Parts: sequence; structure tokens; C-alpha cells
Amino acid sequence: MEMKKGRVTLPAEEGMDKEIIDVVDRWGADAVRDSDGTKVSDALKIRADKVYSKYFFTRGDQEFAKANSDELQHMYIMSKPVTATTDTVEIPIMDGYFDQQLIPDTDHDPKKWWEVINRTTGEVVPTEQWRYSESSQIVQVNQAKQWHRYTVNVLTYQLWDPVHMYNHITNNWDTEHQMPYDPRYPKTRSYIIERLKKWLDEHPDTDVVRITTFFYNFTLIFNDARKEKYVDWFGYGATVSPLAIEQFEQEKGYQLRSEDFVDQGYYNSPFRMPSQAFLDWMDFQTKFVSELAKECVDIIHNYGKEAMMFLGDHWAGTEPYGKYFKNIGLDAIVGSVGDGVTLRMISDVPHVKYTEGRFLPYFFPDTFNDQNDPIEEANQNWLQARRAILRKPIQRMGYGGYISLALKFPTFIDRVEEITNEFRELHHHIKGTSAYVAPFKVAILNSWGKQRTWMSHHVHHAIWYKQCYSYYGILEALSGLPFEVEFISFEDIKNDGISDDIGVIINAGDAGTSWSGDYYWKDEVVTSAIRSFVYRGGGFIGVGEPTAYEYQGSFFQLSDLLGVQKEVGYSLSMDKYNDTLVDQHFILEDQTGPIDYGESVRYVYQVDDHSDILSLEDDDVKIATNQFGKGRSVYLAGLPYSPENTRLLQRALYWAASQENRLTDWYTTNIYTECAAYVEAGYYVVINNSYERQTTTVYKPDGTTIELTLESMGYKWFEI
Amino acid sequence: MEMKKGRVTLPAEEGMDKEIIDVVDRWGADAVRDSDGTKVSDALKIRADKVYSKYFFTRGDQEFAKANSDELQHMYIMSKPVTATTDTVEIPIMDGYFDQQLIPDTDHDPKKWWEVINRTTGEVVPTEQWRYSESSQIVQVNQAKQWHRYTVNVLTYQLWDPVHMYNHITNNWDTEHQMPYDPRYPKTRSYIIERLKKWLDEHPDTDVVRITTFFYNFTLIFNDARKEKYVDWFGYGATVSPLAIEQFEQEKGYQLRSEDFVDQGYYNSPFRMPSQAFLDWMDFQTKFVSELAKECVDIIHNYGKEAMMFLGDHWAGTEPYGKYFKNIGLDAIVGSVGDGVTLRMISDVPHVKYTEGRFLPYFFPDTFNDQNDPIEEANQNWLQARRAILRKPIQRMGYGGYISLALKFPTFIDRVEEITNEFRELHHHIKGTSAYVAPFKVAILNSWGKQRTWMSHHVHHAIWYKQCYSYYGILEALSGLPFEVEFISFEDIKNDGISDDIGVIINAGDAGTSWSGDYYWKDEVVTSAIRSFVYRGGGFIGVGEPTAYEYQGSFFQLSDLLGVQKEVGYSLSMDKYNDTLVDQHFILEDQTGPIDYGESVRYVYQVDDHSDILSLEDDDVKIATNQFGKGRSVYLAGLPYSPENTRLLQRALYWAASQENRLTDWYTTNIYTECAAYVEAGYYVVINNSYERQTTTVYKPDGTTIELTLESMGYKWFEI
Repeated sequence: MEMKKGRVTLPAEEGMDKEIIDVVDRWGADAVRDSDGTKVSDALKIRADKVYSKYFFTRGDQEFAKANSDELQHMYIMSKPVTATTDTVEIPIMDGYFDQQLIPDTDHDPKKWWEVINRTTGEVVPTEQWRYSESSQIVQVNQAKQWHRYTVNVLTYQLWDPVHMYNHITNNWDTEHQMPYDPRYPKTRSYIIERLKKWLDEHPDTDVVRITTFFYNFTLIFNDARKEKYVDWFGYGATVSPLAIEQFEQEKGYQLRSEDFVDQGYYNSPFRMPSQAFLDWMDFQTKFVSELAKECVDIIHNYGKEAMMFLGDHWAGTEPYGKYFKNIGLDAIVGSVGDGVTLRMISDVPHVKYTEGRFLPYFFPDTFNDQNDPIEEANQNWLQARRAILRKPIQRMGYGGYISLALKFPTFIDRVEEITNEFRELHHHIKGTSAYVAPFKVAILNSWGKQRTWMSHHVHHAIWYKQCYSYYGILEALSGLPFEVEFISFEDIKNDGISDDIGVIINAGDAGTSWSGDYYWKDEVVTSAIRSFVYRGGGFIGVGEPTAYEYQGSFFQLSDLLGVQKEVGYSLSMDKYNDTLVDQHFILEDQTGPIDYGESVRYVYQVDDHSDILSLEDDDVKIATNQFGKGRSVYLAGLPYSPENTRLLQRALYWAASQENRLTDWYTTNIYTECAAYVEAGYYVVINNSYERQTTTVYKPDGTTIELTLESMGYKWFEI
Repeated sequence: MEMKKGRVTLPAEEGMDKEIIDVVDRWGADAVRDSDGTKVSDALKIRADKVYSKYFFTRGDQEFAKANSDELQHMYIMSKPVTATTDTVEIPIMDGYFDQQLIPDTDHDPKKWWEVINRTTGEVVPTEQWRYSESSQIVQVNQAKQWHRYTVNVLTYQLWDPVHMYNHITNNWDTEHQMPYDPRYPKTRSYIIERLKKWLDEHPDTDVVRITTFFYNFTLIFNDARKEKYVDWFGYGATVSPLAIEQFEQEKGYQLRSEDFVDQGYYNSPFRMPSQAFLDWMDFQTKFVSELAKECVDIIHNYGKEAMMFLGDHWAGTEPYGKYFKNIGLDAIVGSVGDGVTLRMISDVPHVKYTEGRFLPYFFPDTFNDQNDPIEEANQNWLQARRAILRKPIQRMGYGGYISLALKFPTFIDRVEEITNEFRELHHHIKGTSAYVAPFKVAILNSWGKQRTWMSHHVHHAIWYKQCYSYYGILEALSGLPFEVEFISFEDIKNDGISDDIGVIINAGDAGTSWSGDYYWKDEVVTSAIRSFVYRGGGFIGVGEPTAYEYQGSFFQLSDLLGVQKEVGYSLSMDKYNDTLVDQHFILEDQTGPIDYGESVRYVYQVDDHSDILSLEDDDVKIATNQFGKGRSVYLAGLPYSPENTRLLQRALYWAASQENRLTDWYTTNIYTECAAYVEAGYYVVINNSYERQTTTVYKPDGTTIELTLESMGYKWFEI
């Protein structure tokens, strides 16, 4: 029966059949999956409707890797800068790197594939002026300019697959280091195709091939203390190879340099303004990955199995919101749910039949031990994910790790039973329909747009970063708010203008980053389009350092529209009065205490007298509103995620869109509660996002209200 | 007798002879001066050794001003930006300005002297596309680009002298608005010369002509609410005129544009990186002012009188630390003492016979009323000034305002009697010798160098600014520390290298400002010179955003030397460990509580592992030290003035110079006390900078110590 069974995947564990079957029944699991070190038993296979088996494409066969070490995957790294104290400088190129992960590739001529760069001047050092000693791993630069700094861009082989390395080191495994091989090379390519077929032959009971993931891991580099040195969950660092660079030249018509990958040591992080070379490289690799992935998926389909991709790990080039993704033909996506944002990153993926979320906590000893209550993490995870699920549901959920550990916590088993039932109940009520959204779209504007849907201000999977959380909070709030959210880029605006169905544009980020937009704000086409959009009645919300690019006397280029400007250090002579404070405003109505702006941009001031200051702290503007023609803008100094800030954003969006009167269409008065209405299905649900009992009044579009009380984390369904 | 009389100037006041003579005796005044609305009586003149009379050159004769309104002083202003919402845009050019201060100059063709600028593109609008309506004060731009922003650079006449306007409005005077006339124009020039002679003829009793000041006031613009709109104490805004621009072209060989003065609305604030045009303009005007000033001073000398210049007000072009100042031939400088920095700004002025400080508070009703105790301000002012006086004494001191008000506070009269005695006692002991300084110089490095000695991070006279105090504190601390301080520029380094007598270079400021240095940090000559200097044993202290210029993967260009870097938003993928914390260090030895970094730059992290972190807050490095060759560097996130931070800086300087062993040459253990030794004169003094009794131990260079206790604000002289 739908309400008690289905939509749930459990990890298998050997020798635990009886206990697992009990959990399968209680959680209503209809699928089981193997994971590292576990296998699905025959008894369990019979009980489950589906069996998932994980599959790695580019690691796992050490014999092949060793026999073909010239087809190992590569990475470009930049050596630590060394300052020349004489006219000879010696650069230990691997200093600070982990020698078990990376080794210089000398099979390909360093003089061709490496670059020694004078970082004081930016000049490339002529190859005649340096030589590399393989034994000492030192590049010696002669005729160096004294007191200049030098780096070497080094092409390296990857000796250890980053995910395997991470798991190995984190869990103190005693396994052989798995080496990743590169399917760009024809021999590896045909090998992985054949190996897949062989594997499929050997796994007749597998229903779903859970691909973890395709070919190239995100950029993950360890240091010589075996700790993380560089991580970019969206990175393409591991996709490089001499062959790929050569093929790129054939396809795109120009040659890439090592510096196109090294990028002064910033490695094309998504926070950087993307260079054309990097955009071309992404396109080139994404196309390649999609074509080879499609070939693999077709084979899986030919075996009558489903292909499910893990959203993460070896996903470089898969770009689920990119233009080639649909070609792959995947059946499903599964991803780890860290919060509302990562839930939406999964559930919004197009061109798949279904999506699945893997919830926290993993059944690992770091959480499941007698010092800890795993229910807390499960509840926190569920509360943040649930808001997002209501807006855009995943179709399935699951857990990972060792079920034997979870079984030691019977109350945890109980709680997950409730959660899985709640999840099924949702699907039972909504019947595939969509939740009510406001009558206007919200567009997040940055340099990446659609390709980075739900991925802005994000370094690594749902990890808190000090410089991010005050922006990431916008996404987390939006993940569960009743708005259709679209990610648009400056190029979209330049090419296509601003779509009529957009009600409010949000631009958020630190100056100079891709999220804020840097030099795009000097582009008259961009600024004119946005001014025109707002003047005609649109809304604009700027957070942090929006529209920031110092030019012609303005740091916030759209200061006319925002009504605020930032003091960057050389306009102190200009008096700032910040004296049009407004203490009552639609946006602030549900705020009862001090507002948390997170890291909070400083030194923002009112421009002249045409904006309203809603919040001023330490003489800095924290919230300001402005009228611009028929449209409106809101400035916010930062917006970490919290129920208070979620409501603040919700009100700011309705106000900016000049649609305050629509706020109370499916609205709860208590900010710790939210509601989602499925008009087509005839149901709505009210949820309590807090651990305390909450009483709330629900406003319906017809003006009627109901009052109700929900227990801690509670929910209640109603017919419309 | 020297200890009881001399070195003090009192303001005169009519009808108060008896009382004033009593104060003259008690304070030991040997000079009296008139001030606005007061005259010196004959009785008083006999009592005083010297009579000062104030003199204004370019205001005060309204008849002349009215008859020669085409020779009034000018100012370039930028209109508020207006966004074009159609292809016609109307710009009310005086919107937001004070119509009693400035009026557009239409005697000179606006099409020649004004510029309409598209601030979206930076393009100058062709003159055919705009016209000005004098009646409405509106510039109308045709064929405007819709959604672009436009401004007008307007040449205006000054209808009201800024200082007179300020005093008039602040004190609610009911006087005619004094108009400033421009001696660049020959008629005005010969008029002011003749008027000076006439005035000198009429003032035979005057001994000292107190010039307030010469010809052009610093930039001070009021808004339409009669409040300050723009203030730059060091500004040249009021020096402009069509004639000067024409003469500039003859002298310098190129023509200036209005935009050279308007500077995108930043008006060449000293916080801006100075443009070559502005530097040339300063040179041109400073030369002109010095030549005309010399002519006036020569006349004063011919009358057998002294010429004393007030340091401030109409001082644009006098540049006391500039290359033409010595030519003027002034006898003395007098200035308002706001703190230690402004004291040093006065006492360090070269090429004068003596310097005088005017102390706070002014005897004005805002301080001298029954709600207030004026002694507090007097004590605070004296304590901050005293430290600086000990290092580099002014020769005279004085007060300003209405003595009748001061007389209502007998305890204030008592306290000033003590202060004046203390001041004379100092001179009695030191006999013109200099205080002991450390055996190395401290150089403040910025884009201005010597010309802005004690003037960096300073907007208006000793006024606190949020973006400044964390840097200004360095100067305030140094003003009373035992170091010879030199202000050097990047051009100095480029032209002459780094002088051997410099022990430590300090670079402090926000990125992009003239104080930090902006693009100079991309200059290999600059960075090489500093690296070489430190590597050979020199010291470098960076505060805030030192050496900041984003280039080739570095924001702090000297991160190798500083051992720290700042995260500016796109290197988040790089892990920062900040894990080499050192909790005991020479620099920190006298710190007992949390250190106040003021506004404190955020997001600074350790580069690799070669620096020591002395202080980490909220994961940001606040203090770090580093070894670079034989030299050392210290990074500080900010340094507001306080006794604790003064000691921190003192220790940081000795440590950076690798001269820790010299710290205790004339040193007090208690941070609320300091000592100054006059070895040549055979005396040293110990002072208590606090309001509490303090016990301290004094370390002498020979290793001996004495312990003593000083009362609140106390001091004690000892023979060496």
C-alpha cells in the first residue's frame, strides 16, 4: 500500500538479513543497494523490488591502471611561489603537495606542457632559462630577476583517485590506492566499455546501475599533511590531459596554455569570473563526457537495467543543468541531501525520470556512537530538506552506511519510519502536481546562470564557508519558498533581454566574484536592461556587493536604482547622513528582534535622499528600499539562513515585485511554520520547521483563514 | 622668570582688561591676540610682549568683492547623476548644493568650461547635444542614451567664503556673507598687496601678523540643508579658475579638463591615487601661492613685523612640507592642536623660527556652559598633545575664544595655569635639545610621502572617521613614541631606493587608496626594493590592506614577506589552516586583555606555514609575524589609538627592526606612562598619560632602573 511502502532505498549489509528485512518493512523500503564493502544477499533481493549496484567507470581495476600508467588522469597544479633572492631560483615544484596523489608527468615534455611564470610581472619565462631535475623535483630558473616571484605550472599524473583517497584516509582503510584512468585515451575508452559489459553480465540481479559517477572527479587536492589543500566541487581540474588539449585545439581552433587551467592559482573556481578559455573547455569536456556517458547508458539500457547517476564525485563534465545533459539519457539522479539547496539541486534536474535523495546522517561510526544522538542530525536534515521537497519533490529517498550501526539506535529507526511515512504521504496527496507559487518568477542573476542552478556561493557539498553563508542563505530560504526560481546569466540578458515572467531579479555576492558579476556591471547593455526592467515595474534585490564594479565614480553601478552606495575608501570627504530611517515597513513586519546579516557588508550608505533606510547599524545601511520609476529595489547587507530571514526575503520579494497584496495567498503568520498548496490535487499542507510546538494562522487566497497548532517538527494535510 | 612667564598667547576681549590682566599673569602670557569680534586694548598691549593681529587676504572687503565679481574665486562641482529614462535628460545642475555658496559661472562659456559626461560609458557628450538654461539652472541633454547616467561638471563662482560661511552658520551670526576674491587675477592681486600695506600702516602696535591663512581655502562645500556636503582639509577645489587653467597650460604645456578637477566626483581627495594632472596642478598652484605669499611676507617684514601663518583654513597651496614652502619666508606657524598627530603636523614644520599650538577647548558657549566641565576637554587635549610635544616641541602655546567665558570656570583657569607652567618647565629643562629616539628611523610609505607628513588617513582636522581611525591610530601612537618618523612615497623608492637609516617601513591603508598604494604594488621596482631591504635585515609592518593590488594570483603582493594573504572572494577553494598560533611573543608581552583592532580588516589568512600567527579572531589573522631573509615583518589588522596599542606598535617596531634589545633604552614598564630623555640637556621626564595614579619602573640604557609613582596626569623630571 502506497502509504506504507515504496520510494525508499536502503543500504544492504552482509550477515544482517533478518534485521535488515525488519527495517525494510518498517521503513517501507522497495529498493536495496550495495555500497563499499557490502553486498546484497539473495534473501534481501527477493524482498526488495529493486536492487541498486554501484559502478565506477574510471577506477577499480588496478591491473589495468598499472599496465597503462600513461593513460592515468592528469591535473595541472601550480607550485608554491618562490621569491628569487639571487639571479638563480630553485622551485621545488611538488612542495606542499601529497606525493601519493600526484606525480609530475615527464612522459610529456615539460618544456612543452609546463610553464614557468614570473608572478611579479606575469611574464612566461623562456624555456631556455629553466631546467627540471626529475630526481630532486626542482625547477631551476637561471637569469631570474632578483626579488621577483616565480611559479611553475606542472602537469601531473594522478596516482590516487581523489574520492578513494578521501575515503581511505578518512576511514583509515588499508587498501591499495586506486588509480584513475582517462577514457579520453582510446585504449582506456574501449577498455571501460568492455569492462562495463562484463560487469553487467556478471550482475544479472542488478536493476539499477548506480554510477558513481562517470569519468572525472571534481577538483580535490591534498597537501603533504594528507589533508585537503584545494577543493572545488564544481571543478574541472581532473579533466585535463595532453590528448584533450590537442583535441580541443582541433575542435575549437586554438591552443590552450597550462595557465588557462592554473589561472594564477585560482584554478577557475566558480567564484572567478569565467574566462572564455575555461568556458570553451567546459563545453568541450561536457560534450565529450555526455557522448561517452550516453554510449555507456545505452549499453546499460540494452541489458534492461536503469542508469542512475550520483550527483557529485566524478561528475565533472556531466553538468546536470548544462546543454548536453539530456543527451546522456539517464533514468535517474541520486544525490546527497545536505540542506534545502542541495535537495533542489537534485530535484530540479531535468531530463530524468526520477530523482532520489540520500539523507543524513550516514550510518557511520562518527555519528552512530554512544557519545552522540543521530536523531538530531536526521531531524535537522529532514527539516531543511522538507521545505524544499514541498516546493519541488524528489521522488525517492534513502540512506547510506552500515545498517548494523543504525540498529543500535531503536529510536532512530522509529524516527526514520515516521519520516519515510511522511514522505510517502506527501506523494500520496500531491499526485505529481506542483505546489502553488507566487505569480512572478524570481531570477538569480550571476555570471553562470542556468548552468549553475542552485550552485552559486557553493564551494563544496553543503559545507559552511564564512564568506558564503550570508549569500547562500538566500538560496536556502528560496529552496522552500513559494517562488519559481530561475538562474540567469549576464549573457542571457545581453542576448535575450529580461523575460516578462520575471518579477524580481536578485544579484548577490562579493565584488569581483562571478556571483556579483564584476565587469559585467560596466556593460551598458546589462545595466540598461535592468534599469529598464525595474523602471517599468520590475523588482531588484541586491545583497552584499551587488552591481559592484568601480567605474566613473560609482562602486555599486546601479546605485541610482538601489539608493545606496558603498564607501570603498576614497570618498570619505563626502558627507553621509543616512537620515531617512523608516522603522515600519511591509518587509519588516514579522521581525521581532535584531536581524542577522551574517558577515554583513560594511560601509554602505544612502545615496542622497531618495531611498528609505529600514535598518542602520553602526552607521552602515543594512536594509534599504527604493522606488525607481514604477519598480522597486531592496538592498540587504547579507542574508544567512534562518526562519526570520526567510520571511524577510519572502516579504522583500513580494514588495519588490509590487505584489504585497499576494503575500497572503497560502501564507502562515507564524514564521516557524510554512504551507504549501497543491491546488490541482486539492490539498495543502502546513509544516512546523521548529522543534517547539507552534500555533499559526493560515491565510488562503480567498481571504479565509484557519488557525492550527503543530507539534515539534509536525505537519498537517488539509483538503482545499 | 622663564618658569612663570612666556611662551603663551591669550585671546583679548574688549572691556575685560582687569580680569584678562589677571589671567595673563597667572598663565604667564607674553602675547595677546585679537580674534573675530575682539580687539586688543592699550592697557593689555602694554602688559604683553607681543600683540598678534589676524589678517585675511582674500576676504573681508565686500566693496571690492562686489565691484569685481568676475574675480571671485571658483570651484568645479559635479552635478548629481541623473539617469536618462528617455532620450532626453534634464539635469538640475545645482541640485543638492547651497545656492548661497555657489553659483554657476556663465561669464565663461559653459560649452568651453563645463563637461557633460555619460557616467555609464565615461564618454563626454558633444557640446552640440546639450544646452544650459540659466533661468532654470538645468542642462538638457538631447540624443541621450536611455538608461545611461549623466553628470555635468560645472564651473561655479564662490559667493561665500567657506570659513566665513561655516562660522556664520555654526554661530548663527547675522553678518554679510563674505565673498572670496582670487589673487590669480592681476586686479585682485595688486589690490590685496595695497590693502595689506594700508592695513599695516593702520596697525602700528601689531607685532605679529597672524595670517588666516593665505589665498584659497581647503575644499568645503555645503548642501541645500546648509550642512556639510563635502570636506577635504587638504583639498585644492577652491584654487581653480579659468585664468589659472590657462596659465597652467602655458607653464606645463597641456590643457586641463574640468574632469581633472571633478575626478568622477571624488575631487582628488588625498585618499585617491593622485593623477599626474592633479600633481601638476598642486605644483603649479603651490608655486604661485608661495611666490605671492613671499611678496606679502616681505612687505610685513619691511614693516618690522613677524608673519605667522595659521596651519589650516586658506592654506591650499601653502603645503608646509612641500618644496616651495621655505621660499615664503614665514617666521612662524600656528595651528589648532586636536591630538598628537596635529601637534606634530605643526611642530615638525620646517623653515620657520617657531611654532605655536592653539589648544582646546575654545572658550565658546558650546563647551563653557553649566552643563559641561571644560577641564575634561582641556585635560584630554593636553594628555594627547603632551606626548607629542615631548618628542618634538612646539615653542609656544595658546588658547582661543572669549576669555570672559573661561573666567566663569575658576578651576579651569587653575588647571591651565598648571599646564602652562608644565609647558615652560619642559622648555626650561630641555633647552632646545632633542629627545632620545631609537637608533633607526620609521618610514611611513604611501603615495604622498613627505608632502603629507602627519597627514595620512586624515579627512578633516582631527575628526574621527570610521574608515580612518584604525589607521590614524598608528600616527597618533607614533606622534609620542621615541622614533624619528619619516614619510616616504613610492616615487621616492623608485627614484632613490630606500635610505640606509630606515629601520622599519610601515604601509597601512585600505586597498585602492593612496595610503595603501594600489597600482604601485604591481611595480617591480617598488616590490623588489622592499623585498631587498627586508631580506638584508630591514623591517616591514603592514596594517589593514598593505601591499594590496590584485595581480597574478596575489592580493597582498608582498604576501611572501608578510606571511599572510587576504581572501577576496575567489580563492575559497583553497584551504586555510591558520594553525601555527604562537601565544607568547615579544610584541605581545605588555598586552593583558583583548586587543582592539578597530574596524579590523577581515578574511586575512596565513600563507603556508612560514609565518607565526600571534592573534586569530573568528578565524581571521589579526597579528602575524614573519622572517624574510635577515629581516622581519609584522601584519596588523588595524591599530586604533590606545595606550595598549601604542605599546604594541612600539614593540612591533623594535621587533621588526631586530633591535628588541634596545627597547628598554629609556622605557617605562607601565603602559600608561612614558618617558622622554634629553641626553644632551641631562634630563629625562616621566609622564602619566592616564587619569589614575600610576606606578612605573623606568629602564635606562645603562641597565639601571628607578621606580616611581605619578599622580593622575602627572609628570616628573629627573637629572640623568
